Amino acid sequence: MTVKDMLGRSGVVSREDALKILYEHFLLSDPPREEVSISEALGRVLAEGISSPINLPEFDRSTMDGYAVRSTDTFGAAESRPVLLAVVGDILMGTLPDRPIAKGETMKIATGGALPEGSDAVVMFEHAQPINAASIEVVKPVAPFENVVQTGDDIKKGELILNRGHRMRPQDMSALASVGITHISVMRRPRVAIISTGNEIVPADSVPGPGQIRDSNSYNLEGLISQAGGVPVKKGIIRDEYAGLRETLNAAISDSDLVLMTGGSSVGTADMTARVINDAGHPGVLVHGVSIRPGKPLAIGLVGSPHGHVPVFGLPGHPAAVSICFEIFVRPLLCRMSGEIPNPILEGVPPFRTIKARLARSIASSPGREDHVRVTLEMRDDVLWARPVFGASGLISTLVKAVGTVVIPATKIGIETGEEVEVRLF
Amino acid sequence: MTVKDMLGRSGVVSREDALKILYEHFLLSDPPREEVSISEALGRVLAEGISSPINLPEFDRSTMDGYAVRSTDTFGAAESRPVLLAVVGDILMGTLPDRPIAKGETMKIATGGALPEGSDAVVMFEHAQPINAASIEVVKPVAPFENVVQTGDDIKKGELILNRGHRMRPQDMSALASVGITHISVMRRPRVAIISTGNEIVPADSVPGPGQIRDSNSYNLEGLISQAGGVPVKKGIIRDEYAGLRETLNAAISDSDLVLMTGGSSVGTADMTARVINDAGHPGVLVHGVSIRPGKPLAIGLVGSPHGHVPVFGLPGHPAAVSICFEIFVRPLLCRMSGEIPNPILEGVPPFRTIKARLARSIASSPGREDHVRVTLEMRDDVLWARPVFGASGLISTLVKAVGTVVIPATKIGIETGEEVEVRLF
Repeated sequence: MTVKDMLGRSGVVSREDALKILYEHFLLSDPPREEVSISEALGRVLAEGISSPINLPEFDRSTMDGYAVRSTDTFGAAESRPVLLAVVGDILMGTLPDRPIAKGETMKIATGGALPEGSDAVVMFEHAQPINAASIEVVKPVAPFENVVQTGDDIKKGELILNRGHRMRPQDMSALASVGITHISVMRRPRVAIISTGNEIVPADSVPGPGQIRDSNSYNLEGLISQAGGVPVKKGIIRDEYAGLRETLNAAISDSDLVLMTGGSSVGTADMTARVINDAGHPGVLVHGVSIRPGKPLAIGLVGSPHGHVPVFGLPGHPAAVSICFEIFVRPLLCRMSGEIPNPILEGVPPFRTIKARLARSIASSPGREDHVRVTLEMRDDVLWARPVFGASGLISTLVKAVGTVVIPATKIGIETGEEVEVRLF
Repeated sequence: MTVKDMLGRSGVVSREDALKILYEHFLLSDPPREEVSISEALGRVLAEGISSPINLPEFDRSTMDGYAVRSTDTFGAAESRPVLLAVVGDILMGTLPDRPIAKGETMKIATGGALPEGSDAVVMFEHAQPINAASIEVVKPVAPFENVVQTGDDIKKGELILNRGHRMRPQDMSALASVGITHISVMRRPRVAIISTGNEIVPADSVPGPGQIRDSNSYNLEGLISQAGGVPVKKGIIRDEYAGLRETLNAAISDSDLVLMTGGSSVGTADMTARVINDAGHPGVLVHGVSIRPGKPLAIGLVGSPHGHVPVFGLPGHPAAVSICFEIFVRPLLCRMSGEIPNPILEGVPPFRTIKARLARSIASSPGREDHVRVTLEMRDDVLWARPVFGASGLISTLVKAVGTVVIPATKIGIETGEEVEVRLF
């Protein structure tokens, strides 16, 4: 059976076209919101922009250990012409000074202390000489607000601190705490269903009978989904029979935001998966076959549900194909579905760790096909080399031995030994 | 008070020396182990190497849809001289063929199917012509084991799959599942106590009185610790008084693997923190003052406990100093304490995401001091520029606006506008 997409297209498309077709049809809707404590907010995406309810700091604070002064009192001070000031108090941390200071007066203050009324600057200890317990000589002038953080200097009341769609970093948790916001509204994490298919697949904790193998792709996917900020939901191992697959897929669509089916490396079962996706709802299969290696038999569909469109992927059964298809298609999609609005200033910055290396051995590729080659690294003669890990994409060991991948673009017919490549690290 | 380390040293040391002193004194001990399901093992560190209890695959499998054959039967086959074979069965997935094949016989097989006894290769569908339901003509020869993954080709029985000290990635979860290992022994995550100090600090969810501010550093640390694979344990906000700090530190040492104290930006409270660390146990404070900015007042100590040495950090109170000191000192230490044995082939590869940019504005630095400058990025005339975010290290907003940091090494007195820099992204 050849599955055609809703536009009557069939056959293999490029990676770029596959993504374009998917995003053309997928109407992204806002994820539901939930409230979390900022302590649990790391990596979560803000459902709304957050403005500060207060000025930060809420009072003028000293940035030095020293003496709070009226700056005008110090103008003209010098080693040769020190200014005498009366020490009228010692400001305790966490309190407001109990009285203002007048002309010619000062108070001792520590870093972070609140400036007394009447003062507008702090003289560092190094620039003041105690004469006795009640007076000091200042030997250097301070400008108004020198060594002082003024009210609202850090964050102004009403100022937007974090944008809607921002993914929370540790310092963001800190900033919200500092203005008293301890609970925030975030987008719910996308729930991603995993359906393992194949008559030969048995659970990983069971003993396979003759001709059977253990389910393993679902564990790879579980890890990849968690890394991408989604919530993996395993739907079990389903036989390659239309009715059972269709029923499981329907159930997954009803309670998940995205569905990944894995298995079916043979032509017959791959087509079965595509047919089940196509029949599950409109628009059905959009892409069946992408000119990438590994991953060519990939099917991408979109199925309507009461809670919006649910993307469904029919992933090839080979372990390396699962990883590559996830990285190329599923991870960026999950990122969009999470509600994240990427920081525009990071546009063009790869969202993963990369390193430049020289290819240790030439690799051939077919024009029109994008190859994702698993590599390991080695340092030789002070040069970092990327060495392809050989083995069929069906071997899990090649993925375990690799530390990353190198892409041969569809426009190239290969990469020569010694050429510089960018390794995308796992 | 000047705190001296156990060797009588005092004063500010370089970043490199601070790390050297710490690692010289810190006898790393193996973390306790715990057992986890492979589904929960992402990012965990293996407490022991794992070898395969089986050959993978456990039987010879086909890598193609086609016909299982005796390769010798196909030798000499060509379009002009096809070889006739009798189709004696159709191999069902997940079963072993019920009979061997003899000379002149074949069976239909799908990708992943088990080869029947007597066969040693698979002819692709494309190279076979069905004559009738019971026979085919093969038009191209296959070599022995062509289109076949032999028993143990992926992973051999007894082969080491993953090393002790390896940090689990998604594909590793998959590899273990495929050989039937579903529970593994991992190192317990380091427990990291956070003690907030300062008489002016109140909980983030309370309303500060005059001169008070909210605890915020502990939230930054909570996020940083989680990112680094540790378990943050908040020990509350403690006043700057010797007895209370000492008691809280003792309690933290008894049930944590590492302790972070934060606050005390004033000279007096910073010294108090260092004194409490020094008195808590042998060897006490090792470093007090590091020539980095921000972060200079950092104190690093080591305190003996019944469960081994516990590193204790007296972190400066400024938000940016907290982040920088964590990145430079705490994150790499936590990595070692987690039991991780870094993959030697990734030696020299930064463990964080970096990008090259040109500095948008020159920055001056003092020789002998390593500066960590917060920057944001901008694309202008097709060039990526790193622009310093101005503001004192006491301002949390500078950390929120920044997307990473640029380091000015201690050997330089600054970086000029337009110079290429490496930005470490948050």
